[in-house]
Amino acid sequence: MTSRLWDQPHHDGSAMYVSNPFPELGETVTMFLRVPRASGVTQALLRVCIDGEQALIGTRTDRQDDHEFWLRADVRVENPVVNYRWLLDGGPGAYQWLNGTGLHTRDVTDASDFRITTHAPPPGWAGDAVLYQIFPDRFAKSTDRPAPEWAVAEEWDSEVIGRGPETPYQYYGGDLDGIVAHLDHIASLGANTIYLTPTFPARSNHRYDASSFDHVDPLLGGDAALSRLSDAVHARSMHLLGDLTTNHCGDAHEWFRTAVEDPHSPEAGFFLFTEHPDEYVCWFGHTSLPKFDHSNPELRRRLYEGPDSVVARWLGPHALDGWRIDVANMTGRHGATDLNHPVSTTLRRTMAEADPESLLLAEHSHDASQDLQVDGWHGVMNYAGFTRPVWQWLKPASPVSFEPGPFTAVPRLPGADVVGSMRDFAAAAPWRATAHALNLVGSHDTMRISTMLGDRRLVTVAFGLLATMPGIPMLWAGDEIGQEGVNGEDGRRPFPWGDTSGWDHERLATTRALLGARHRSVALRHGGLRWLTVGEDAFTFLRESPGETVLVHAARAGHAPVRLPARTVGTHLTGLAGTPDLHADTDAMITLPGAGPAFSVWLCAPLD
Amino acid sequence: MTSRLWDQPHHDGSAMYVSNPFPELGETVTMFLRVPRASGVTQALLRVCIDGEQALIGTRTDRQDDHEFWLRADVRVENPVVNYRWLLDGGPGAYQWLNGTGLHTRDVTDASDFRITTHAPPPGWAGDAVLYQIFPDRFAKSTDRPAPEWAVAEEWDSEVIGRGPETPYQYYGGDLDGIVAHLDHIASLGANTIYLTPTFPARSNHRYDASSFDHVDPLLGGDAALSRLSDAVHARSMHLLGDLTTNHCGDAHEWFRTAVEDPHSPEAGFFLFTEHPDEYVCWFGHTSLPKFDHSNPELRRRLYEGPDSVVARWLGPHALDGWRIDVANMTGRHGATDLNHPVSTTLRRTMAEADPESLLLAEHSHDASQDLQVDGWHGVMNYAGFTRPVWQWLKPASPVSFEPGPFTAVPRLPGADVVGSMRDFAAAAPWRATAHALNLVGSHDTMRISTMLGDRRLVTVAFGLLATMPGIPMLWAGDEIGQEGVNGEDGRRPFPWGDTSGWDHERLATTRALLGARHRSVALRHGGLRWLTVGEDAFTFLRESPGETVLVHAARAGHAPVRLPARTVGTHLTGLAGTPDLHADTDAMITLPGAGPAFSVWLCAPLD
Repeated sequence: MTSRLWDQPHHDGSAMYVSNPFPELGETVTMFLRVPRASGVTQALLRVCIDGEQALIGTRTDRQDDHEFWLRADVRVENPVVNYRWLLDGGPGAYQWLNGTGLHTRDVTDASDFRITTHAPPPGWAGDAVLYQIFPDRFAKSTDRPAPEWAVAEEWDSEVIGRGPETPYQYYGGDLDGIVAHLDHIASLGANTIYLTPTFPARSNHRYDASSFDHVDPLLGGDAALSRLSDAVHARSMHLLGDLTTNHCGDAHEWFRTAVEDPHSPEAGFFLFTEHPDEYVCWFGHTSLPKFDHSNPELRRRLYEGPDSVVARWLGPHALDGWRIDVANMTGRHGATDLNHPVSTTLRRTMAEADPESLLLAEHSHDASQDLQVDGWHGVMNYAGFTRPVWQWLKPASPVSFEPGPFTAVPRLPGADVVGSMRDFAAAAPWRATAHALNLVGSHDTMRISTMLGDRRLVTVAFGLLATMPGIPMLWAGDEIGQEGVNGEDGRRPFPWGDTSGWDHERLATTRALLGARHRSVALRHGGLRWLTVGEDAFTFLRESPGETVLVHAARAGHAPVRLPARTVGTHLTGLAGTPDLHADTDAMITLPGAGPAFSVWLCAPLD
Repeated sequence: MTSRLWDQPHHDGSAMYVSNPFPELGETVTMFLRVPRASGVTQALLRVCIDGEQALIGTRTDRQDDHEFWLRADVRVENPVVNYRWLLDGGPGAYQWLNGTGLHTRDVTDASDFRITTHAPPPGWAGDAVLYQIFPDRFAKSTDRPAPEWAVAEEWDSEVIGRGPETPYQYYGGDLDGIVAHLDHIASLGANTIYLTPTFPARSNHRYDASSFDHVDPLLGGDAALSRLSDAVHARSMHLLGDLTTNHCGDAHEWFRTAVEDPHSPEAGFFLFTEHPDEYVCWFGHTSLPKFDHSNPELRRRLYEGPDSVVARWLGPHALDGWRIDVANMTGRHGATDLNHPVSTTLRRTMAEADPESLLLAEHSHDASQDLQVDGWHGVMNYAGFTRPVWQWLKPASPVSFEPGPFTAVPRLPGADVVGSMRDFAAAAPWRATAHALNLVGSHDTMRISTMLGDRRLVTVAFGLLATMPGIPMLWAGDEIGQEGVNGEDGRRPFPWGDTSGWDHERLATTRALLGARHRSVALRHGGLRWLTVGEDAFTFLRESPGETVLVHAARAGHAPVRLPARTVGTHLTGLAGTPDLHADTDAMITLPGAGPAFSVWLCAPLD
C-alpha cells in the first residue's frame, strides 16, 4: 500500500513557499500555498496566532495553470515565533487543516503548526555545510608523544576495546596536525566543515571530562596546533567546529578542584554541592562529572557570557567557527530549576557578538522542539527526526531489546511509520531549525552504520538520505571507507591511513558522488521538502527551490515500480550521482524502477 | 466503521492509574498500566523525561486476572512537570508507544506525552464544581433603577438586539440581589458555583470595559449587593466566581483617564502608548480597550501582585471564591514581549496567599497547552477540546463559512474526528488541567445550543456530555429552559421568570437529572476517561475511579447497536439519569440500544 501525496496541497518553510524565511520582527511576509486541482480544494485561509490569539487571514490567487493554482496570504510577523497553518475548503470532508505533518480532516493542536521566527538567521555557510566528525585520538597522528599517566598506550593498529575498564584509556595518539595532513581526503569527500570532538585536556581518550577550558590538550599539539589546523581549514574556505560540554565538567577540572579545596572560592558556586566537598549533583550519578550551576553569574561569565568567556575566546579566524554543545538538552536543568533557555540564548548572543558568522549546534537525543523556539541553538543533533527513522527503516529485522536504561529500542518499521516520524519531528520545530538540524547515520556514540545495516546497498540508501534530506549532513570519519564497530566505542577505530586495502572504495566513491550532487544542487541544500509517495519499502520526495527541483527515490527492497505524473516531476529526469536519466512514458507518467535496495536522485527538468 | 478500543492498554492521569496525581517535588509516584491480554502486549517500559533527558524505567506486575494484567513503575517526580509515556512490547508491530492520544506503532514527539505536575493542586471543591454562568444585566432584577447615561433602557420583556449599534447599550437592569432571589432555581439544577460576567462599573451592558476595579457597579447594587450575594451563596455551601480582564481595561477606566491626562503619572506606565495621549496599543484595534503593559511593576501590584491588588481584595468569605480571567490568552503578549506566564503564575500565587481555596480559570479560544504547563491557570475554557468537538458532532450539516476573521468554521464531522480532537487537546495538557478545564456547550459569546442544534434530543446529548466528561461543566443561564439566540448577544435574552409558559420543562428536568447523576458519582466527577468504541454516529467511554465505574453512550443518530464485553463493563448496568438498566446476554456481551439521538449513562456493577 503506497500513499500518493503528489496531489495534496503543500506548504513548507522554504523559499518556494515563504517570501522571506528570515524576517525581521514586524516584517510582512507572504506565505504561498500550492494547490493541485486534483486535491478538490477550492479555497483556503491562513490561520495565524499573534499575541496569543488566533486569526484567519484571507488568501488570493497568485498564479495558476491547468493542474494547480497557488494562493498567497500576507502575514505580519509580530512575534518572535509565529505559528500558522492553512484551513482548506473542498477536498475530503470539505474541511481540512494543512500543517507540518500534512492534511487533517479535523481540529488539531498547534503542536505541528508551521512556525516562522524572527531570530537572527544561522550563518549563510551553515546551509551549505557538510560536517566531517573527527574523534582526534583516532583520526591521524603526526608524531609520537609519550602517553599520559591516565592512558594505556596503543599502537595505531591495535584493536579497540569496545566495552571494558580500559575503553576510555586506550590512547592512540591522534592529534590536530594529523588532521591537517588529511584535509585533501576530507575535502575530496565533499565535506567542508570539520567537527572535532573535545580538544581540551582531560583524563580520557574522549576528553568529555575536561580538566581545563583554557588551552588545547598538549597531547593534541596544544593551542598552536589548533591554530595551524584552523588556518589550514580556513585556507580551503572550510570551517571548524569545537565541542563543549555545558552541563558538567570533569572532576579534574581546575574549577572543580578549586571548588573542592575552598568552599569560599568563586568556583564553589559553579557546582551543586549538597554536602561540600563530597556530595554534589553530577551527570547520571557519575561523580567524575560534576554538574554546573548556571544560576551562578561568575560561571556564566567564565563559560559563555561575554567576550572573555570560554565560548567567545575560542572563536575566530585562527580558531573555531562555532560549537557543538554536548549534553545540551540537560544543561541548566535540575529539579525545580530550568535555565536551559537562558543558557542557550546567552551563549548564542555571546557567539554572535564574537563572530557573527559562527554556528551553534547542540546535542539532543529526543524531542528538542521546545528548545528550538528560542533564539538559542541553530540546530540540534537529529537522532529523533532523522537517525532513528533511517535506522528503523533500513536495519534488518531482529529481536528488539526491552531493557530499562537511557536507550530506546530500534525496531524495523515500514516506510509509512518512518516517514510519519520524520514529518512529526520536523513539524515540531521551526523550518529553519529543521533545515539546520545535524543529520547523521552514525557517530562516535553509535554502532557503525556499515555494521548495523550489513548490506552495502542499504548503507548507500542511508548515505543517500543523509545527502538529500533537509538538514546539515554529518559524516562520521571512517564511515566513508566502511569502518565497522558494534557500539560507539568499538567504532572509534583508528583510521587506517597506512593500509588502504581494507577500505571500501566503492563506498568512498558513492560518498563523493552523493555529497557532490548535494554541493551542485541548491534545491538539495536549501530547498523545501515535498513527499510524493510513501510505501513500505520505497518512498519518493522532491526538494524544491525557486528554479530547481530534485527528485529522490529511496528503496530498502525491491518493490512495484513507482509511477509519477510528468505534470509533477517534469517529462525528463536527469540522473545525479550515477543515477540513469528517465523520460516520461507516452501516458505522461514517469516510471521509477522497482529494484532495491537502491537510492536514486534526479534533477527535474523545468516544467516550462 | 466503529473502532473498538476496549482491548487496548490504558493509562490516564487519574487516581486509578497514578498513586498520587498531586505529588510534591521529589516525591515518588507509582504509575499503573492496564493491559488487556487480548492486546497482545507482553511487557512495557515507562519512558520519562527528567532534567531534559529521557530514560526507560522497568515495570513489574501489580495484579492480574484472566483477561488483563496491571503493570506498575515508580517514578521520582524530579521536575515541576514530568512528561512520560509507555513503550509496549507485543501487539501490532511489536513496538508501540502509548501516550495521551492512544497507541502509536512508531516514534512520536513529546507533544502528547502524559504529564504530571507538582504545582499546588486546585482547591478540592473545584473538582466537584458545576458552574452556572450569569450575565448580570439579563438574569434577574430586584428593583428599578434609573438607566445610566450610556444606556438604552429596556423593559424586561423587550426584544434583545443581537447585532447593531445599540447592542452593548440595551439596559435591562438585572442586578445581584436579583440573583439572590433565584438561588433555589440554580441549586435545583445541580449547579453549585455561580460565575458572574463582570460586575465592575463600565459603559456597556457586558461591562468588559471596566472603568474601575475598586467597587461593584451601583447599577448592580454596589459592593453591599455583592456581599449579600456572596453570603447567600456561601450559606448554601456554593461558590462565587468573578470575571476580570487582565489584557486591557475600558478607556473610561480611572487608570487610563489619569494616564491620558498626566504622562508623568504612574498610570501612564500601565499602558502601551506609542504617541501619548492619542496612540496606544489596544485590543484588536478597539481604542476603547487599551492594553495593559505588564512589565510595569506598579500595574502588577495594583492589579494582581500581593494582598492589596484587585485580584486579592475581592476574594474572601463575603466576596469571591475565584476568578475567570478574560482574554487570558493574550494577556502580557505583545510583539517581542511575552509575559503571560509571569502574569498567570503571579496571579495564582497572590490568590493562593489571599485564599488557598480559590479557583483560577482563564479564557482561551484554542490550544492552551503551553500555558497550562506553568503554575498559573487551574484550567481554561475548553472551546478547543470540548465545545467545538461537541458542536462539530451534533450540529446539522450546513454550508461552512470560509471568511477571514477571528472565528473558525464549525463543520459537521463524524465521531472519529471529534473524539480524535478531544483526545488531542486533552493529551496536550497535564491531566489535572484537563480535569479542571471549563467545559461548555454555549456561553454569552456563542449561539445558544438550542438554536444551533434544533433537535431537542441532540441538546440532551450535548448536556449529557457536559455532565459526564472530565472537566468542570458550565451551564449558561437560560440553556436549562431552552433559551434561544443566533449569536452571543442575541442569546443574552432576559431570563423569563415572570412567564414560565415558554420554558422547556423537559430540558429543565433532563438538566437536573444529568447534573444530579454527576453529583452522585465520584467517577463522573473525578474519574479517568477510557474510550471503548468510536463510531460515526455513536461513541462510548468509561469514567473510572477506584471503586466506581460509569459507562456513557452518546449517539447523534440511530446506529447499529453497540456490543460491549461484560468483562470490561460488568454484567449488570444500572441506569442513571433516566437510563434503563441493562444486563449481559448469555454470550457475556452487553448490547446498548441503537436508537438516536440519545444519551445514556450507567453505573457498572463491580467486576467482583
